[in-house]
Amino acid sequence: MVDDPKFTPSRRRFLQGAAVAGGAVATGQLAHAQAADPLITDLGEQPWSQYLGDGVDAAPYGMPSRHEAHVVRRNVPWLTADSVSSVNFTPLHEMDGIITPNGLCFERHHGGVADIAMADHRLMINGLVDNQMVFTMEDIMRFPRENRTYFLECAANSGMEWRGSQLNGCQFTHGMIHNVMYTGVPLRLLLEEAGVKTEGTWLLAEGADASGMSRSIPMEKAMDDCLVAFAMNGERLRPEQGYPVRLVVPGWEGNMWVKWLRRLEVGDAPWHHREETSKYTDLLEHGEARRFTWEMDAKSVITNPSPQAPITHGPGPTVLTGVAWSGRGTIPRVDVTIDGGINWHQARMSGPSFEKSMHRFYFEFDWDGSPMLLQSRAHDSTGYVQPTKDALREIRGENSIYHNNGIQTWAVDESGAAENVEIG
Amino acid sequence: MVDDPKFTPSRRRFLQGAAVAGGAVATGQLAHAQAADPLITDLGEQPWSQYLGDGVDAAPYGMPSRHEAHVVRRNVPWLTADSVSSVNFTPLHEMDGIITPNGLCFERHHGGVADIAMADHRLMINGLVDNQMVFTMEDIMRFPRENRTYFLECAANSGMEWRGSQLNGCQFTHGMIHNVMYTGVPLRLLLEEAGVKTEGTWLLAEGADASGMSRSIPMEKAMDDCLVAFAMNGERLRPEQGYPVRLVVPGWEGNMWVKWLRRLEVGDAPWHHREETSKYTDLLEHGEARRFTWEMDAKSVITNPSPQAPITHGPGPTVLTGVAWSGRGTIPRVDVTIDGGINWHQARMSGPSFEKSMHRFYFEFDWDGSPMLLQSRAHDSTGYVQPTKDALREIRGENSIYHNNGIQTWAVDESGAAENVEIG
Repeated sequence: MVDDPKFTPSRRRFLQGAAVAGGAVATGQLAHAQAADPLITDLGEQPWSQYLGDGVDAAPYGMPSRHEAHVVRRNVPWLTADSVSSVNFTPLHEMDGIITPNGLCFERHHGGVADIAMADHRLMINGLVDNQMVFTMEDIMRFPRENRTYFLECAANSGMEWRGSQLNGCQFTHGMIHNVMYTGVPLRLLLEEAGVKTEGTWLLAEGADASGMSRSIPMEKAMDDCLVAFAMNGERLRPEQGYPVRLVVPGWEGNMWVKWLRRLEVGDAPWHHREETSKYTDLLEHGEARRFTWEMDAKSVITNPSPQAPITHGPGPTVLTGVAWSGRGTIPRVDVTIDGGINWHQARMSGPSFEKSMHRFYFEFDWDGSPMLLQSRAHDSTGYVQPTKDALREIRGENSIYHNNGIQTWAVDESGAAENVEIG
Repeated sequence: MVDDPKFTPSRRRFLQGAAVAGGAVATGQLAHAQAADPLITDLGEQPWSQYLGDGVDAAPYGMPSRHEAHVVRRNVPWLTADSVSSVNFTPLHEMDGIITPNGLCFERHHGGVADIAMADHRLMINGLVDNQMVFTMEDIMRFPRENRTYFLECAANSGMEWRGSQLNGCQFTHGMIHNVMYTGVPLRLLLEEAGVKTEGTWLLAEGADASGMSRSIPMEKAMDDCLVAFAMNGERLRPEQGYPVRLVVPGWEGNMWVKWLRRLEVGDAPWHHREETSKYTDLLEHGEARRFTWEMDAKSVITNPSPQAPITHGPGPTVLTGVAWSGRGTIPRVDVTIDGGINWHQARMSGPSFEKSMHRFYFEFDWDGSPMLLQSRAHDSTGYVQPTKDALREIRGENSIYHNNGIQTWAVDESGAAENVEIG
């Protein structure tokens, strides 16, 4: 709080810890308090109250404030040979709540973004079906729709952490995830329309992009909770998320959520395509690989403070926050530690708890200004508890780039700066 | 479904009604079926699969497809003298689910959009408090946060319907509403920090824009569920929605959700400012006015089909959808009719049901191609049922432009075109 010379000095009740629900005892003080502040000595003199701003015709489709220009997806050019088969990352440290705005959802393409008009798109169902069919988008939109919120996480999210690369920032270590409310038709309804033959136990989903991305999906999952989605967060899919239509495969690795979905083939065995053999398999220490590791294990990360979001306010009341998710259900509980695991505290969950969706947690505490080791540990509704990175390495070695859901550690120094570290 | 010459003709099970969950008996046929479709004769020849598209460095902050350029907020220039004190409208007919994307949330300014940097903003609490205080944005972000989803509806939404103006399109008749997941600090925590004196029974909320927008709010509401919000749908507030901070007053008319919030004054009586006397009061037939009509009554509208979203597929399986909301709770039920109220059907709700949030409903039916009169009727969790426009007029006359929550009728003709009508 900034003292205003016109007012009685604040008693700073907040700093005494009395008014902070769930907070620890406050002992610090706000670093930036100042005796005089020209911006508040006379509210009528604030420059932005001296002119008429933009009117309602200025932005038919609105954009963030120019003061938020730093809140963007970021890619890492050296990570891949070309940006058309690459990835960028969601700025998790700039976000709050559980919804990822469409403009900030990370991208992963294998042949760049296909540019398809709604009216030109077709979705074919062929293979072991009674009726091979081709649907227009208008056809798809005549089936009953559902609205459900799911996270999508790339199997390679945190992949650099297997060998302790220590990328500095949760955007880069954990930013291959987004969480969106989808509108779509249950995949089951389209498959039932075509009539799946008894021997049809597998489904191939294929994209219309230049890479013809394809993955094998067991029929049991296809008939369970998958959606053929055409809207995200209330509006049509974004081009980079598969406009006009993508597959939603709740809780399973993002590579299977085929974008620009043009074909569903029913078969009696998996196809063993590139994306489920040379890629998206988990190479173990002894040279064998885990395959069809579709479900995303429970995971969490502290987004603030973190390397891209240091503590700037000095000691005193501090809000720690982060996100957690599980491909197997909900997240009823997240534990956090600020001392590298000596003491664990149950975080406060806030916001909706949906199956296979991101969850938001907070931990309010009074920072004493000394160095910290921050960690979070998710528990999912099956009872599974997020493991340490070392526990994962003991079982799976360090050869894989996939399915690293280990506990992340940020070291915070006296200045409030944070970095990616590993502790033994 | 489009027949592909390479395939066995479809048996069109969907058209026989067998595969449509919740659908009525199908009797029509899909209008646009065609014998040959060059886009699908060879999937490998689709033009968008012939080139590499945009890479992951093309759009740090993403935008909708160029094929969706028609999905925008629209203003009506003749409605107001100047665009800086005016309104634009959410394109409800282009949306689905319950989340309004930030770029499409309708705008209402009284002096244009204030352009304020996060670091420059201050929020003052003064009046009948123990400690008059001024908060920076960083101060506010050190208090515990909540994530909650609420609709914001302008009190004047559907205002032209009192006298039967029959604007053609739900964007214009009902588009002064949006539904967003907010992140913010409970207003109660900031007021407790300042310490409200016993005689402090009212709160004035004032904006930092050129209009200095201000409204009186009873302390009981301020201490209940209001938020001082800095994020919407996961990212910072948009400028036109009050960046860096706005008041969220769940279930109450949008005018009270003061944007660019710079001051909260505690008093012992309402202030009777312009926006609660000459404006935002409901002039009755006999010349008296209803005042402090804050709560938004239960309401619904069919968004598709509607005048801006005609039926283009001809008779057969048809998805009717719309939204419903109440300032007093949830919407457990919506009824719809396609024959002007002779028969009512209970709609299917899909998506999350939150207090004081938008709800999505669907009704799947088989259109026989004859003219229809479409209506929806919301029931809220208090038992209140949305009234007809005539029932409202009987009690309140036709002088007001505020708080019209009457049942909306769309007439659909044989071609599928819809228009705004009133039926007796």
